[in-house]
Amino acid sequence: VSHLPLGPGGEFDRIRQIIERVGSTGVALGDDCALVEWPGGTLALSTDATIEDVHFRRAWLTEAEIGWRAAARALSDLAAEGAEALGILVALTAPRAATAEALAEVMGGAADAVGAVGGRVLGGDLAAGDRWHLVVTVVGAAARPVTRAGAEPGNELWVTGALGGARAALDAWLGGLEPDPTARRAFASPTPRIAVGVALAAAGARAMVDLSDGLGGDARHLAAASATRLVIDLDRLPLAPTAGSALDAARGGEDYELLVAMPAGFGSAAAGVAERTGVPLTKVGRVEAGTGVLFLLAGVETEVAGWDHFVDAPRRLG
Amino acid sequence: VSHLPLGPGGEFDRIRQIIERVGSTGVALGDDCALVEWPGGTLALSTDATIEDVHFRRAWLTEAEIGWRAAARALSDLAAEGAEALGILVALTAPRAATAEALAEVMGGAADAVGAVGGRVLGGDLAAGDRWHLVVTVVGAAARPVTRAGAEPGNELWVTGALGGARAALDAWLGGLEPDPTARRAFASPTPRIAVGVALAAAGARAMVDLSDGLGGDARHLAAASATRLVIDLDRLPLAPTAGSALDAARGGEDYELLVAMPAGFGSAAAGVAERTGVPLTKVGRVEAGTGVLFLLAGVETEVAGWDHFVDAPRRLG
Repeated sequence: VSHLPLGPGGEFDRIRQIIERVGSTGVALGDDCALVEWPGGTLALSTDATIEDVHFRRAWLTEAEIGWRAAARALSDLAAEGAEALGILVALTAPRAATAEALAEVMGGAADAVGAVGGRVLGGDLAAGDRWHLVVTVVGAAARPVTRAGAEPGNELWVTGALGGARAALDAWLGGLEPDPTARRAFASPTPRIAVGVALAAAGARAMVDLSDGLGGDARHLAAASATRLVIDLDRLPLAPTAGSALDAARGGEDYELLVAMPAGFGSAAAGVAERTGVPLTKVGRVEAGTGVLFLLAGVETEVAGWDHFVDAPRRLG
Repeated sequence: VSHLPLGPGGEFDRIRQIIERVGSTGVALGDDCALVEWPGGTLALSTDATIEDVHFRRAWLTEAEIGWRAAARALSDLAAEGAEALGILVALTAPRAATAEALAEVMGGAADAVGAVGGRVLGGDLAAGDRWHLVVTVVGAAARPVTRAGAEPGNELWVTGALGGARAALDAWLGGLEPDPTARRAFASPTPRIAVGVALAAAGARAMVDLSDGLGGDARHLAAASATRLVIDLDRLPLAPTAGSALDAARGGEDYELLVAMPAGFGSAAAGVAERTGVPLTKVGRVEAGTGVLFLLAGVETEVAGWDHFVDAPRRLG
């Protein structure tokens, strides 16, 4: 049993204490997915909670979007492992007053998200509670699984898509404004990056992580797991149209894009991968010997905070 | 895609509406587990929520018991499919004031439950909310999966263990009393019936279901899925020491024992299976042509209500 090192932060201290108590019953906790070797290939598994007033507010999303977003967040963990989606299981807790139509719309949104990446709804559970609370468990298969732990000095760092859209929507809502439609879509119905994750794995990806905790948080996880140092040039970040500054985009979580360490020279193949999958790829930095993450803004070392779901999200939304 | 018919009841009407909306993205929803054919064998998957003030009250259970019980409830779905446990994923939402030690104890209890049946903790997720809310997803492998749908006229009906203990504990707590230790244990730390489920599958089980919704509810599910009629003699039910009447035991949910349809003549093999697995087996009835469930008490047809988690549990505990 090997447990991957995690980056710093309160959430990860809590996880460390759990890992100690769970002991040898636990398997490699700390990556985006658990990997289970199985005769026909490697299974990738992950579970992810989406909770009203912690991860979203009811007024921001339609019922179908609540389901889509919860499923897309979980599917993002499969993408980060370079895995195809077999399917999802959805444990849905709904407010007691919810109609059967509302329940069906939420589950239907989750089904649409997994259907969009070729997977299926494998199971579900229904309970009544005070608020919407969805736990989506994803089941995938990886021909060549990519953990957070394989980055090596000399690798290039790339990100998929554009960053900062989801945070821009969140900031608008929290400021009492209706977000720009593009930013709203980034938050409400992110596209799971399964296809590009699989393509990056096939193209030789060494380490990959999704940006659910923001680049500030997740780059540190990848650096810690790989025991390397990441150097990221914030001026190169691909910004969503309404993202604000590069620093905002790097701090914001919930984008569900991928950060990936590729062998040097990937640049010559990147355009082809981007064209085949329809997902832009941008080189944002490099891997060096050392530890931690160096963020550069106009060439100057800059602090970028992570996003602690356990503390920050309830503080903002609760 | 085949969706198994479900028994009557409000919870199942809600599930039917979801199945309609999910459409062809859904796979055989309505059994204890989803079954995924996979090169090395059949995977069995299920997800199950355990929520404070819906399924238990905080004062009734230690932290380790909260975790154990949540995992055991989900593992019971694997047992009912005749599957071995590969592992569990646990999405844990904890009250904001919970200590790191409390989180570790809850996760540790879940790890102990899956460890007791030879499985592992494959993954987890941590979030902060108003109350304890655990979703456990189980991953198993079945050499010979047993659904709810294979019962045939002439089969015998058997149950594992003893019934009514968990309900007796629940009734004591709700009446302001401390339950008898045996009844308390039935509620707080049920033993997942994985070993006996696998043994029953190997011995030719035709259909199997766990008794989470009580015999009154789950016998109807098995009858509906198999399109047969079940005749159950309540006088034969194996009662837990503190169970009260046979009718109480048949109505009470949360026992996590198994109801199984075996080929006629299983009686000659039953003692051997019981001895090897350490789990008593009791013949309680038979399968006939027809529909529905006939419960007999002293030879007289008797109504036995099911247990609707969506309605009954919140009404009693909420």
